[in-house]
Parts: sequence; structure tokens; C-alpha cells
Amino acid sequence: MELPEDSGKKPVKPRSDEEKQQINNRLKRIEGQVRGIQKMVEDDRYCVDTLVQISAIKNAIDKVGYSLLERHTHHCVANAIHNGEGEEAIDELLKVVQQFAK
Amino acid sequence: MELPEDSGKKPVKPRSDEEKQQINNRLKRIEGQVRGIQKMVEDDRYCVDTLVQISAIKNAIDKVGYSLLERHTHHCVANAIHNGEGEEAIDELLKVVQQFAK
Amino acid sequence: MELPEDSGKKPVKPRSDEEKQQINNRLKRIEGQVRGIQKMVEDDRYCVDTLVQISAIKNAIDKVGYSLLERHTHHCVANAIHNGEGEEAIDELLKVVQQFAK
Amino acid sequence: MELPEDSGKKPVKPRSDEEKQQINNRLKRIEGQVRGIQKMVEDDRYCVDTLVQISAIKNAIDKVGYSLLERHTHHCVANAIHNGEGEEAIDELLKVVQQFAK
Repeated sequence: MELPEDSGKKPVKPRSDEEKQQINNRLKRIEGQVRGIQKMVEDDRYCVDTLVQISAIKNAIDKVGYSLLERHTHHCVANAIHNGEGEEAIDELLKVVQQFAK
Repeated sequence: MELPEDSGKKPVKPRSDEEKQQINNRLKRIEGQVRGIQKMVEDDRYCVDTLVQISAIKNAIDKVGYSLLERHTHHCVANAIHNGEGEEAIDELLKVVQQFAK
Repeated sequence: MELPEDSGKKPVKPRSDEEKQQINNRLKRIEGQVRGIQKMVEDDRYCVDTLVQISAIKNAIDKVGYSLLERHTHHCVANAIHNGEGEEAIDELLKVVQQFAK
Repeated sequence: MELPEDSGKKPVKPRSDEEKQQINNRLKRIEGQVRGIQKMVEDDRYCVDTLVQISAIKNAIDKVGYSLLERHTHHCVANAIHNGEGEEAIDELLKVVQQFAK
């Protein structure tokens, strides 16, 4: 079973503006890195050099993903467990971990 | 040993404008997906939904990477082997595969 | 920080004999697959064929790992959260997920 | 398209007894590690400790895989390219890389 694109759910603890800023700064840097690859393609740079940069983007995205995962587990999953709705939250967590770790 | 950021090398067979266009169209789509994640963070969307989208970006980047790898092997590596410089080209190829596959 | 080889901890809910049996049946099958690869090497089989079998072993090990991860989260992590010791258990969980997903 | 379980092909350069020995020593160590996990399950050891060991097995298997990949590329793929049959050999190589890297 696939996870839906939009579950309609919300984080238990809303993100502060500072928290949003922090994640989006990282995402903006990744956006810049993706544009950097386009420039490398435009300039017909050596494939291996381009692949090294693409690997760097993958690492950066992984880090963002793990920080979301961390927040999600500490807040949403922990909260669900406290409220006796842990089973479903844990199944969802493990499904997204598997999808993300592929 | 790490691969350098800029090897100073060039692809054996230059990329055509059409080829550059094709890769960059894919990269522009990925850039848009990264901006989409920023919007999701801004709107404080559910972490799992965001992680599903981040997994989609990882897949899209992997596909671009594999297509570069394919071109590189068919042209640069094959050419190096023909010219008796295969050893070095293959070592470089396997190093980037390992870095990319991590 | 690395996770220790032996934490000295125990599962909150002991595994039943049936549960142990189930996991070990899978592990015995993996052991047999690893022996199968040795036979392929002995017979000097084609590398790609051997690599296909090695990929199968990796998948089988991943499945065992995810089933342990599932049990651990449903029992140990959930229990720690109920007892107000969730922070540490979740940090440990995410660390092992990252190590396992590499 | 999936790669077949048995392609009926052979390595271009046969493996020496020493080479077979080296790979199989590594595989025997992995076999021992898989048995070690069975003991950990039997003793109902902490899941995270077991997962740390499972991650170690995955790394060890990856190393065997990459060494096979290396040999295959230096011998079989290079040879195919020399003989003008590079296209097929490279496609096969990239397919197994993708399967293995998943």
C-alpha cells in the first residue's frame, strides 16, 4: 500500500516561523545546487564531475528528510502513542522510512 | 580517495543542444519540486506528506544520475578502453557509482 | 556518535519461541543464499549472475531488518514514550534507521 | 526488464584459485555473521543491537558486490568493448548496478 500524497493531517505541534525558516534555507540551498547542475550541463562539463555534485544534492536532501523524520517522531508519533493511537502512527512512520530509505 | 570537484576533463562526445535541453528540463522539474517542498513547509503540512514528496525528488535525481552514468559509460569509458586507458576510466567510474549509490 | 555493539538492554516484551523461530527461519534461508554464492564463485559463474543473487540477499536482509525495526518501535519505543523516556528511545531509533538505511 | 538468474555466460578471464579463495573467505565470514544474528535472536537480544549487526552484514555484502563489479568491468566489459560488443555489455552493467544499488 502506498502512502497518499495528501493525508489531510497536520503536525501536532505547529512549526514556528524560525523552524520553517531553517528548513527552507536548506531547501533554497538545494534549489541553488540543482540550478548549478543545469549550468554544468549547459557548459558540457565532465559527467563524473556532475555526478559528484548530484551525489552532494542527494546527501543534502537526505539530511532534510531525516530532520523532518526526527521532528515527526518526537512530536506526532510520540503524541499518538500517548493518546493510544500509536499503532497506526508507527505503521505510517515505518512505511515512510522504507519509502525514503530506498 | 575522494573524487575532485572539478577534474578539468570534458566529455569525449560533446552534448548536443537537444541532449542538454532534455536533461535540463528534468532538472527544472526537480527545481520546481524542491520549491514545492518549501511551500509545504510554509503551509506547515503534515511531515509524512512532505517526506513522500522528498522521496519523489530523490527518485527523480537518481534517474538523472543514472542517465548521466549511462552516457558517460557508453562514450567516455568505452572510448578510454579503446585507447588503452581503460584502467583509470573504470576506476573512476566505479568510484562515482559507489559515491552515487550510497 | 556510533551505536554500541552491546547496549546491555533487553526487549520490553520478550520474544515468544514462535517469533524467534520465524526470524531464524528467514536467517537460515539467507545463510543458505550466502553459501549459494560461494558455490557460484567456486564454479566461476558469470559476475552479473552472481551480483543478481547478491542483490537478492541484500533485499532479504533488509526485510529482516525492517521486521525487527517494526517490532522494536511498536514495543520498546512505544513503551519508553509511555514511561516518559521517549526522547532517548526515539533518538536511538532514528540513529539505527540512518545506519541501516545507508 | 529483469536480469535473468542464469545468463549462461562465463567470465572472460577465469578466476584463479587464489581469487576464488579470497572472495569465499569473505563470504564465509558473512555466513558466520548471519549465524551470529540467529544467536542474538535466540538470546532475545535488544533489537537495536541486532540491527547494528545487520547493518554490518549489509556493508560486508556491499563490499563483496563492489569487488565483483570491479572485476567484471575491468575484464568482461572492457573485453566486450574491445570486441565491438560494448553496447550490450554496458547496458547489462548499468542494469546490475541499479539493481545492486537499490
